[in-house]
Amino acid sequence: MSRPTSTNAPLRFLLVAATLLAMGASLVMADEGMWTYDAPPYKELQSAYGFTPTQEWLDHLRLSSVNIYASASFVSPDGLILTNHHVALGTVQRLSTAEHNYVRDGFYADSPDKELKAPGLSIRVLVSTEDVTTPIREAAAKAKGPVQAKALRDAAKARIEADCLSKTGLQGEVVTLFGGARYVLYRYREYTDVRVVFVPELQAAFFGGDYDNFTYPRYDLDFAFLRAYEDGKPARVKDYLKIEPKGASDGDLVFVSGHPGSTDRLLPLSALTYFRDVKYPAMLDRLHHMEDLLNDYSRRGPEEARRARTFLYFVANSLKAREGEFGGLKDPELMARKAASEKALREAVAASPALKERFGGAWTKADEAYRWAREHETDRSFKLEMPGSRLCGLALRVYRSASELSKPDADRLPGYHEADLQDLTRSVSIPSPYYPDLESVLLADSLKTIVDGLGPEDPFVKALLQGETPDAVAKKVFAGTRFTDAAFRAQLFKGGAKAMGACRDPLIELARRADPFLRATQAAFRENVDSLEEEALTEIGKAGFEVYGNGLYPDASGTLRLAFGKVAGYPFATTLVPPFTTFYGLYDRAFSFGDRGDFELTPRQREHRGEVDLSTPLNFVCTADITGGNSGSPVVNREGRLVGLVFDGNQQSHPNSFVYSETQARCVAVDIRGILEALRKIYGAGALADEMTAAAR
Amino acid sequence: MSRPTSTNAPLRFLLVAATLLAMGASLVMADEGMWTYDAPPYKELQSAYGFTPTQEWLDHLRLSSVNIYASASFVSPDGLILTNHHVALGTVQRLSTAEHNYVRDGFYADSPDKELKAPGLSIRVLVSTEDVTTPIREAAAKAKGPVQAKALRDAAKARIEADCLSKTGLQGEVVTLFGGARYVLYRYREYTDVRVVFVPELQAAFFGGDYDNFTYPRYDLDFAFLRAYEDGKPARVKDYLKIEPKGASDGDLVFVSGHPGSTDRLLPLSALTYFRDVKYPAMLDRLHHMEDLLNDYSRRGPEEARRARTFLYFVANSLKAREGEFGGLKDPELMARKAASEKALREAVAASPALKERFGGAWTKADEAYRWAREHETDRSFKLEMPGSRLCGLALRVYRSASELSKPDADRLPGYHEADLQDLTRSVSIPSPYYPDLESVLLADSLKTIVDGLGPEDPFVKALLQGETPDAVAKKVFAGTRFTDAAFRAQLFKGGAKAMGACRDPLIELARRADPFLRATQAAFRENVDSLEEEALTEIGKAGFEVYGNGLYPDASGTLRLAFGKVAGYPFATTLVPPFTTFYGLYDRAFSFGDRGDFELTPRQREHRGEVDLSTPLNFVCTADITGGNSGSPVVNREGRLVGLVFDGNQQSHPNSFVYSETQARCVAVDIRGILEALRKIYGAGALADEMTAAAR
Repeated sequence: MSRPTSTNAPLRFLLVAATLLAMGASLVMADEGMWTYDAPPYKELQSAYGFTPTQEWLDHLRLSSVNIYASASFVSPDGLILTNHHVALGTVQRLSTAEHNYVRDGFYADSPDKELKAPGLSIRVLVSTEDVTTPIREAAAKAKGPVQAKALRDAAKARIEADCLSKTGLQGEVVTLFGGARYVLYRYREYTDVRVVFVPELQAAFFGGDYDNFTYPRYDLDFAFLRAYEDGKPARVKDYLKIEPKGASDGDLVFVSGHPGSTDRLLPLSALTYFRDVKYPAMLDRLHHMEDLLNDYSRRGPEEARRARTFLYFVANSLKAREGEFGGLKDPELMARKAASEKALREAVAASPALKERFGGAWTKADEAYRWAREHETDRSFKLEMPGSRLCGLALRVYRSASELSKPDADRLPGYHEADLQDLTRSVSIPSPYYPDLESVLLADSLKTIVDGLGPEDPFVKALLQGETPDAVAKKVFAGTRFTDAAFRAQLFKGGAKAMGACRDPLIELARRADPFLRATQAAFRENVDSLEEEALTEIGKAGFEVYGNGLYPDASGTLRLAFGKVAGYPFATTLVPPFTTFYGLYDRAFSFGDRGDFELTPRQREHRGEVDLSTPLNFVCTADITGGNSGSPVVNREGRLVGLVFDGNQQSHPNSFVYSETQARCVAVDIRGILEALRKIYGAGALADEMTAAAR
Repeated sequence: MSRPTSTNAPLRFLLVAATLLAMGASLVMADEGMWTYDAPPYKELQSAYGFTPTQEWLDHLRLSSVNIYASASFVSPDGLILTNHHVALGTVQRLSTAEHNYVRDGFYADSPDKELKAPGLSIRVLVSTEDVTTPIREAAAKAKGPVQAKALRDAAKARIEADCLSKTGLQGEVVTLFGGARYVLYRYREYTDVRVVFVPELQAAFFGGDYDNFTYPRYDLDFAFLRAYEDGKPARVKDYLKIEPKGASDGDLVFVSGHPGSTDRLLPLSALTYFRDVKYPAMLDRLHHMEDLLNDYSRRGPEEARRARTFLYFVANSLKAREGEFGGLKDPELMARKAASEKALREAVAASPALKERFGGAWTKADEAYRWAREHETDRSFKLEMPGSRLCGLALRVYRSASELSKPDADRLPGYHEADLQDLTRSVSIPSPYYPDLESVLLADSLKTIVDGLGPEDPFVKALLQGETPDAVAKKVFAGTRFTDAAFRAQLFKGGAKAMGACRDPLIELARRADPFLRATQAAFRENVDSLEEEALTEIGKAGFEVYGNGLYPDASGTLRLAFGKVAGYPFATTLVPPFTTFYGLYDRAFSFGDRGDFELTPRQREHRGEVDLSTPLNFVCTADITGGNSGSPVVNREGRLVGLVFDGNQQSHPNSFVYSETQARCVAVDIRGILEALRKIYGAGALADEMTAAAR
C-alpha cells in the first residue's frame, strides 16, 4: 500500500527528524548519489551490496560511456552506439525528407554504406580527469575583489583547457564542483563523424505519447543506434559494453553511467519550505487555471482543439513534473531527511571557528532571501512576467533586445547575452503558428488575473489597461498586431533601437508599457533573492566539501556520473507497480484504448505480434539516482554488462531535483531483452542484435 | 491529467458552489442514482442519452435480476444464473472437501447431474411492488408517541408481508424509503434449490489478490454460474438476459441492475465536514499506525509475517477504502455539490411553512450532534473501543453478553439483540487462530496510545493499567488468558452471568475494568450524536421526498435498483486509464511480477495462453452509480442485452457512500467477451458459452 501524505504532517515531520538524528543519520540514502568517477561510492556499495568495483571496472564503464548532450554508450568494437530514440530524434528529423519520413517510419541501415551521417553531431568520451583546484586558486589568489577573482579564474580555466588540447589532442573542460570547492579538468576524446544506424518509429519509441510521459508501467521502445566513424570508417573502440542477454532480475544491483544535467540538492531547507508553502502552490494554481482555460477554448470546436493541443500538452506535462516535485516537498519524511542533513552540516560548520567564519552565514543569507520573497509574493505572482502567453512573451524579448543588445555584454539582462543570441534569433524568426484568437483569450485572462490580484488602482494595472477592460485590450492588441508574422518580427528584431522606437504595433506598445514594471520587479528579485541564494549555495557547497570531502557527491553538472541502485517495483495508489513490463503489456494498453491515437500500434508491431515472445521484458525500473540528461545512459550489472537503457524517470522521481528518495522514485529503462527481441522479431534488424551478441562473447 | 486536490481548496469550494447555484444546479449528476424500478430516471436518461426505456424493457430487466444476498441474473431459459466468483465463494468453500478443493481448482459440471446443490442457498426475483404508505401510516395514526408508532408500523408491515405470502404465494417485504416517506411492498418469487455449475480457480477470479482489490486496470475472471432448480429439474424461466457477444464499446450507455446495500447520500454537510476534519484523519492515522506496527512485527521473522498476514491485508484494504472515501471528502468540487444540493433543499423547506414546521430543524439537529462530537473527540478516540485487537474485542463481547442477554431484547446494547445472536455465537465458537504474542503487541501498543492520549492520571488509564506499564499489562494478560481457546470461550459464553461472575481470566478482568468507561462513552455518543443523527436523517429523507418526489432516488436499501452510465476510462495520476483491459494485460501483469504470489497464473491460464485471443476484452469500467451489494449485477446495453458483470468499484468510487462522482469513480465489470473466451479457451466449458449463445438467439 502506498503511504499517502500524512494527515498529521507536522507531527510526523518532527518524529522522523528526531529519529534520523538519534540514529546519527548517514550522509546519503542507501541508493542515493550521482558520483564522480574520481570519487566512487565505495563505502555505500560495499555496505549495501557487498560490492567494490575495481579501478579497471570503473575505467571500462567510464570509457564505454558516451556524451552526446544527453547520454549514450558504445556497444560494439566497431563504434556502435546505443542511446534513446528521443536523444537521436533531432538528428532523425533533420535527415528526414519529403520522400523519407524516418520519424514516422523509422530507419535501419542494414549495411555500413547505408548509415546516414548526422549533420553537426559529435560525441565525446571522458578519457581522464585531473584535479586543478590548486592552479585555479593560485591564479586568483592576488585578485582584488570577487569580480577580478572570477575573471582570473576564468582565464586560468581557459588556459588549462587550451593547454590540454595542444598537449594531448584531447578536448579539455574545467568543471566546477561543490560551488567551487573543487575544480577538475575533464579530458575528452571527440568523434565528429557520427552516423545513424537504426531508429524505430516515433510511435513505438514514444508509445502512450504525452499521456504516458513520466508514467510507469510503460511500454516504450525508446532506443536508437548510431555509429562513430573515424577516417570514413567505423571507429574501432577498445572499451564498449558487452550486453547481458539474460537482462537483470528483480532486486539486482545495477549501475547507471550518464550525464545528469543539474540538481539543487544543496538548497537550504528554507528554500524548500518557501517552495512548498508559496511558490509551488501559486505555480500549480496557475497551471491548473491555464489547463482549464485551454480546455474551455478547445471545447469551442475541433479547429480550436487542434490549435490548443500543443500548448495543452505542454501545460499537462509541466503539471506532471511540478506536481511530482511538489509531492516531494509535501512529503514530511523527505523534508525531515533534508532537515537532518542540514542540521548536521550546520553543526559541523559551527564547531569549527574557521568554517564558521567562512560559511556560517550561508543559511542566514538564504533565510533572508526567502523571507523577502515571501513578503513580495504578490509582485512575484503578477509583475514578474509579461501578461498573456507565448507571443506576448516573445514581443517583450524583441522589445527588450532593441535596448539590451546595444549594451556591453556584462551589463545586459539575463537572456540577452551574446551566448543567448542564437536562441533568441531562432525564436524570433521561426514561423511557429500563433493563433490570434487563442493568444487573445490567454492575454485577456492574464490581464484579468492581474487586475484581480493587484486591484484596479495599481499603477501596473493602469499602465496595462489604460482605462479599458482586459477583454477590450486583448481584442484590440490581437486585431492590430502584425507580430504573428515571422518576417515582421525578424525585421523588427534586426532593425534595433531605431526600428523599435518607431514601431507602433499594439503588441509592442503593450510590451513598452509593461517593461518598466517588470524590470523593476526582476531587479528587486535579483538583488534580494537570486543573488543571496547564489551566494548561499556556493558557500553551502564549499562547506559540504570541507566537512565531508568526497564522502558527499557534488550536485549534477552535466558531466559524467555514476549512480547505482536495485531493480525494484514499488507501492503506488491502491496496489503494487511491477519491476518489469512485457510486450504483453504493450499490446494490452494498445487494445485497451482501441488501438488508436497515442496508444496505436505501429504497422510493424501489429504485423509481427505473433512472432514476438510476448513475455519478454520490455521496460523496467530501478532505484538509481537520475535526473534530466541521464536519457540514453546505459544500465549495467555487477559484471559491467549492459542490461538496460535509461529513458525516463517516473513522476515521483521529480523531487530528485531537491532530494533523493527510493520509496517510489524510479529510473525507467528499456530492457536489453526488449531491444534484442524488437530488433529480431519486429524490425528485421537481427544483424544489430548479432553485432552486440558477437561483441559480448 | 488528473486534477489533484486543489492547493487552494477553500477558494475553489466557494467558486464551484456559487457556479452550481447560479446554474440552478440539477438535482442529480449526469449518471447519478440508484433508482427504484417503480420510479425510473426517465428524464435523466432521455436528456443525457436520448433513451426512454419501455415498461416491457424495465419489467424484463427486473425479472431477469436475481437477489442472492448480493446480485446476479438469469442468463438462460433453463435457470442458468451468472454472478461473481466472490459471491459464490462461501458456497464453494462449503462444498469443497479434502479430495475436491474447488476453491483452488475451480469446478465445472459438464452435465446437469454433476451440478452441486448449494447447501442453504436460496435466491429471489422481484415480481412486483406496491406502495403501502397509506395503510402503514393509517395503522400508526392513533399512536401515542414515537415508540408506539414504531410498534404499530412494525405490526402493520408484518401483517402486510404475511398477507402477501398467503394470498400470492410470494414472499413479501415492506421496504422503507426516504426515511419513511414511502413504504413499498416488494413481492419476491423464491428459488430454494440452487446448484453450482461453474467456478474458476480463486486465483483466476481474484488475480492480483488484496493488492489489486479496489484497483483498475484489473484482470479478473470474477464470475461463476449457478442454476435454479424446481422440482429437481432446472427451472424454466421466462425472463433471462440475452448476451451481446460483441460486448459494449467505449462511450456506450449501459445499465446496472442490482442490490446496492446502503448509502448515506442524505448525510448533511455538517456530517461530511466533521468526517473530513476529525473522524477520518483520526481513523486513517490509526490505520497507518496499525500497518506500521504489523509490518514491524512481520519483520521479526517468517512465522511472524505469516501470523500477521490476514490482519495486515485487512488493514491495508481498510486503508484503501477509507482513503478512497477521504479522497471524496477532501474533494472541494464534491463538497461544493453537496453544499449546493443541501442549500436548495433547505431553501425549499424554508419556503413552505408546513415543511418548515416538520423538517426545518433537521439540519440544526445535525449541527448540534457533530459539534458535540468534535468537542468529545478525545473520548471517541480513546474510550469508545476496547483497547487491543480482535481477541480483546471478542473478550468484551463475551463479557457483556453475560449481562446483556439477560435483559429484554429492547433494552440491550446494540450487537446483543436476538437478531445478533447467531453472529455472536459463531465469533465465539469458531476456532480462529489467535497468536498471543501478536495480540500482546497489539494490546501493549493500544494501551500506550491511550496513556499518551489521556495522560497517566485519567481514571480510565488507571483502571486499565493498575499502576503497571502497558507492556507489563499486555504480557500478563496474554501469559494468563485461556481465551485463545475456542472451547473455553464457548463455555464461558454459555455459562452466562454466573460463569462470568466467577471468571478470573486476565483478559476478562481487563474487559471488566474497561467496560464501565466504554459503556459511559458509548451511551453519551448514542444520546448526543447517533440519535440526533438518526432523527435528522429521517427528517431530511422525508423532506427530500416531499420536495422532489420521485425526481430523487432513495438511499440504497439492499433492494433492487437500476443504475446507468457510460463505458468510460478516466484520467488518473500521470495518465489515462483505459475503458477496457484485455487478456494481454493479465499475462503482462503476471510476467511483470515473475508469475508468482498474488500475480501467479493458474496452470490452465498458463497452459492455454496460446489458444486465447489475447486482445479479447477482459474487464471494463463504466460510470454507473454502485456500491457494496452490487457485486454480481448484470450490465446491459440499450437493447437490454448482457455486456458485463459488476464485480468491484475502484478506490475513487468509495465516496459513493456519501456523494456520487463520475470524474474518476468507476464501476468495474467482467466483460461478457472475456467470460465467453475463458469458458471456451481456458476452461473447456464451451457448453456454457453455447447455452447462453443459443438462448440469445
